[in-house]
Amino acid sequence: MVGDPRTVVARKRDGMAVPAEELEAFVLAYARGEVSDALAAAFLMACVIRGMTAEETLAMCRAMVASGATVSFDLDRPVVDKHSTGGVADGVTLVFAPLAAALGLGVAKLSGRGLGHTGGTLDKLEAIPGLRTDLGPERIEDQVRRVGCAVAAQSPAIVPADGALYALRDATATVPSVPLIAASVMAKKLAVGSDLIVLDVKAGSGAFMKTVEEARALADACRALARDAGRRADVAVTDMSQPLGEAVGNALDVREAIEILRGERAGRLRDLVVWFAARALARLGSIAHEEGVRRAEAALASGAALERFRAMVEAQGGDPGVVDDPVGVLPRAPLVLPVLAPGPGVLAAVDAEAIGQASVELGAGRRRKGDPVDPAVGLIVGVKIGDRVEAGQPIGEVHARERSAADRAAAALLAALSWSEEPVTPPPLVHLEEGRS
Amino acid sequence: MVGDPRTVVARKRDGMAVPAEELEAFVLAYARGEVSDALAAAFLMACVIRGMTAEETLAMCRAMVASGATVSFDLDRPVVDKHSTGGVADGVTLVFAPLAAALGLGVAKLSGRGLGHTGGTLDKLEAIPGLRTDLGPERIEDQVRRVGCAVAAQSPAIVPADGALYALRDATATVPSVPLIAASVMAKKLAVGSDLIVLDVKAGSGAFMKTVEEARALADACRALARDAGRRADVAVTDMSQPLGEAVGNALDVREAIEILRGERAGRLRDLVVWFAARALARLGSIAHEEGVRRAEAALASGAALERFRAMVEAQGGDPGVVDDPVGVLPRAPLVLPVLAPGPGVLAAVDAEAIGQASVELGAGRRRKGDPVDPAVGLIVGVKIGDRVEAGQPIGEVHARERSAADRAAAALLAALSWSEEPVTPPPLVHLEEGRS
Repeated sequence: MVGDPRTVVARKRDGMAVPAEELEAFVLAYARGEVSDALAAAFLMACVIRGMTAEETLAMCRAMVASGATVSFDLDRPVVDKHSTGGVADGVTLVFAPLAAALGLGVAKLSGRGLGHTGGTLDKLEAIPGLRTDLGPERIEDQVRRVGCAVAAQSPAIVPADGALYALRDATATVPSVPLIAASVMAKKLAVGSDLIVLDVKAGSGAFMKTVEEARALADACRALARDAGRRADVAVTDMSQPLGEAVGNALDVREAIEILRGERAGRLRDLVVWFAARALARLGSIAHEEGVRRAEAALASGAALERFRAMVEAQGGDPGVVDDPVGVLPRAPLVLPVLAPGPGVLAAVDAEAIGQASVELGAGRRRKGDPVDPAVGLIVGVKIGDRVEAGQPIGEVHARERSAADRAAAALLAALSWSEEPVTPPPLVHLEEGRS
Repeated sequence: MVGDPRTVVARKRDGMAVPAEELEAFVLAYARGEVSDALAAAFLMACVIRGMTAEETLAMCRAMVASGATVSFDLDRPVVDKHSTGGVADGVTLVFAPLAAALGLGVAKLSGRGLGHTGGTLDKLEAIPGLRTDLGPERIEDQVRRVGCAVAAQSPAIVPADGALYALRDATATVPSVPLIAASVMAKKLAVGSDLIVLDVKAGSGAFMKTVEEARALADACRALARDAGRRADVAVTDMSQPLGEAVGNALDVREAIEILRGERAGRLRDLVVWFAARALARLGSIAHEEGVRRAEAALASGAALERFRAMVEAQGGDPGVVDDPVGVLPRAPLVLPVLAPGPGVLAAVDAEAIGQASVELGAGRRRKGDPVDPAVGLIVGVKIGDRVEAGQPIGEVHARERSAADRAAAALLAALSWSEEPVTPPPLVHLEEGRS
C-alpha cells in the first residue's frame, strides 16, 4: 500500500474515521502479507473499541471480497444463497436446499466448516458415506442446473482476507464487534453471485449474539452491506435460546433432516425451514408469504423435497440409500445413553452454547481449525422451553464412543437445562423479520 | 502463564481493570515468547484507548523489571541516575555526569541509543575516538568509584520486556500512551539501583509530549511509579519548544558540552545542567537549591567538572585530548554550510522535531534500530526564541557529507523557524518542578 500503514491504525486508534480507500488498501496489504499480524491485530482492537462507520464496514467487506476470486452461476432459475450466523442443532440448510430446489429455486451454497460450539453444514453432510463437498464452480453450476441444489466447500481462493482476519481475531480477543462480524459474514455472500441472500441471524444462548438487540444490530449491518453492494437480501433474527432441532451432532443432524424431508417430524426446525422457504418464494416469485408456506408444506408432504435431497446426495457421490434408511446407512456411535429428567418441572431456559460445547467434547465438533470430527457422536435434546416433564422421563440421548465421555456429556446437558415449577411461554421462532424490524 | 492470555486482553478491551498479578503474568509470558506479538499488540492498543489504572501501570512496570536482570552499585557516595525523555540538542547528560561527579555524587548512567528525531547519549559519546560504552556492571562500579561517573550502554539483559514491547509499540501505532511511556521510562530506572532518580520530562515541539499538560501527566505517572517502588525521584518538566543547546549532531554535541565544561559557553543548556545538579545536591545533601547552584557554578568555573569528564573519557578508552582540542580530535564533516536569516525579525517558534529529523536525514540519527550513525554530521542552531536577527545574519550551520544533503538540511532548518515582527517572550527553562507542579 502507499504510505505507512501505521497511519491508518493511528487514525482508528484516535477515534477518527479512516477513508474507505485507505482502509481497503490496508486490508488488501494485510492479505498480501505486507502488513504484520501485530499491526493488523492493533487495528482490529481499535475497530472493536472505537466501532466502525457504515462506510468503513463497507470498505472492510469490499476489501475482503477483492482479496480473492468471485463466483457467479449462469442458471435458468432464481438462485438463493442461504446462510446462518451459527447455532446449535441448526440443520436449516440441510432441509432448505432441497426444499427450495423442489420449489423451482436454485441453491448454490458454499459453506464453511464448524468451529467452536456451532455445527457446520459441510461436517453434517459429510457424515453421509461417500459424499464429497469439494466441488469446483463448474460442477456446482452443473449440479444446480440438473438437481436444483448443491452444498459445497467454500474455495480458499474466495475471500482469503476474511479467513486470515478471522483466525487473527480469534487469536487476539478481537472477535466481538458487530461491524467486523457483519463484514466477515457478508463478504462470503457478496463474493458469490445469487439473486437473493437469505440471512438467518441467530440470537440467544446458542448464538454468538446473546441478545435480540445485538442480533438486530448485526442484521442491520448485514442488510446495509447487501444494499450498498446492490444485492437483494432477506435478513431475519431467529431464536437460538435453545437448540433449534433436537440433534446436535453430524449423522444425528442428517437423520433429523431426512425425517423432516420424509414428513415424519414436526417442530421448530421444520417450521423455520418452511418459513425461510416461503420468504424466498415470496421475494423471488412475488407471491404472498402464506402462499409460499402452502407450497413449501406441499413440497415436503409430496416427497418432492426428499427427492431433491436424494438427487443432491447422489450427485455429490453420497450413498442415496441414506434417504430410505438413515439409521442403517449413517455412522452410529457404539454407545447410546438415555438422559432422564431429574425431577418434575417445566423447562425454563437452556444454555445452548454449553450443549454445543458438550457435543464438541464428544468429538462432533472441532476446537481448532483443521481438527477432525467424529460423524457418529453427539446429543439428542428432546425437550423445548415450555415443555412439562415428569421425573425420570427420557429427555435426551448421548451418542458416544465410550462411557466416561457419555457420562460427562449427559452431566453437561443436564447442567445446561434450567427448570421451573410454573408454566413458561416458549420463545418465538422469529424475533425480527425484514420490513418489521 | 496460567489460563488463556486472551482473557486479559478481553478484560482490557471491555474497559475493565486487569488484576495486577494477571497483567504481570501476561507481560512476563510475552517476554518469554509465550504470548504472540499479535495478541500483545491487541493488548497494547486496548491500553492506549482505554487507559490504564495506576495499579495496572505499576504492574506493567514491575513485570518489565522482573523480566530481566537488575543492577546495583556498592559505592561510598550517593548515586544519581539521570534520564531525559528525549529531545533535540539535549546534551544535559554529557555535562551533568562529570559535574555531579565533581560535586561528590556518583553517576552510573545506563543509556540507550537515539531513535527517531531525538539524539542518544551513547551515540554522542561514541563520537570521541576510541571511547567505548559496552562496560559490564563491575567495570561501571569500579569507574564510578575512581572517576565519579560512567555512561554505558544498557545491557540487553536488563528489562528485556521493555525492549520487546517498545519495538512492538513502534511497529503497531501504540506508542502514544502516558501509562505505557511511564512504565517504559521507569522500568529502566527501577532496574538499576540509585539513591536518586533525576527525571527530565521534556515538553514541546521537540519532545514526544508536545504540551506541558501531556508532560505533566507523564511526570505524575513516573513520580507515582517511583514512589510505589519506594525509590526517591526528582521529576521536572522542562522546555523543549526549541533545541535546548545549539548542536544537533553527535560530535557537534560533544564539542558543545566540552565548551560548557571549559566555561566558554553560556546559555539554556548550561543553565539547565546547573539547575539539575543543584536539585540533586539539594535532595541528597540537604542543602538549599541556591547553595547547590553556587557549588555547581564553582565546579564548572574551577575546571573540576572538566577534569571529571577527561577522566571518564580516558577510563572508557577515549582520546582525552578531546578535552583540550575538541575540533581537532572529533570527526568533522567535509562540508560546513552557513545558514543565514531570511529577513529581519524575531524568532517566534521552532519546530524542534523537524530540526531533529533534518539531522537524522543528514545521517546523525537512525530511522530504525540498528542503523549506523555518522558522528560528524549535524546542525548548529544559533538562535533562540525571542532573539532578534537581521536579514543575512548567520543563524546556524549545516555539517554534511555532500552539498545536496546540506542544502536539504538548510532548507529544513529554515522551514522549522517561524518569525515575528513583534518582540517574543522566551519560554521558561523549567515548566514544572517537583513540589510546585
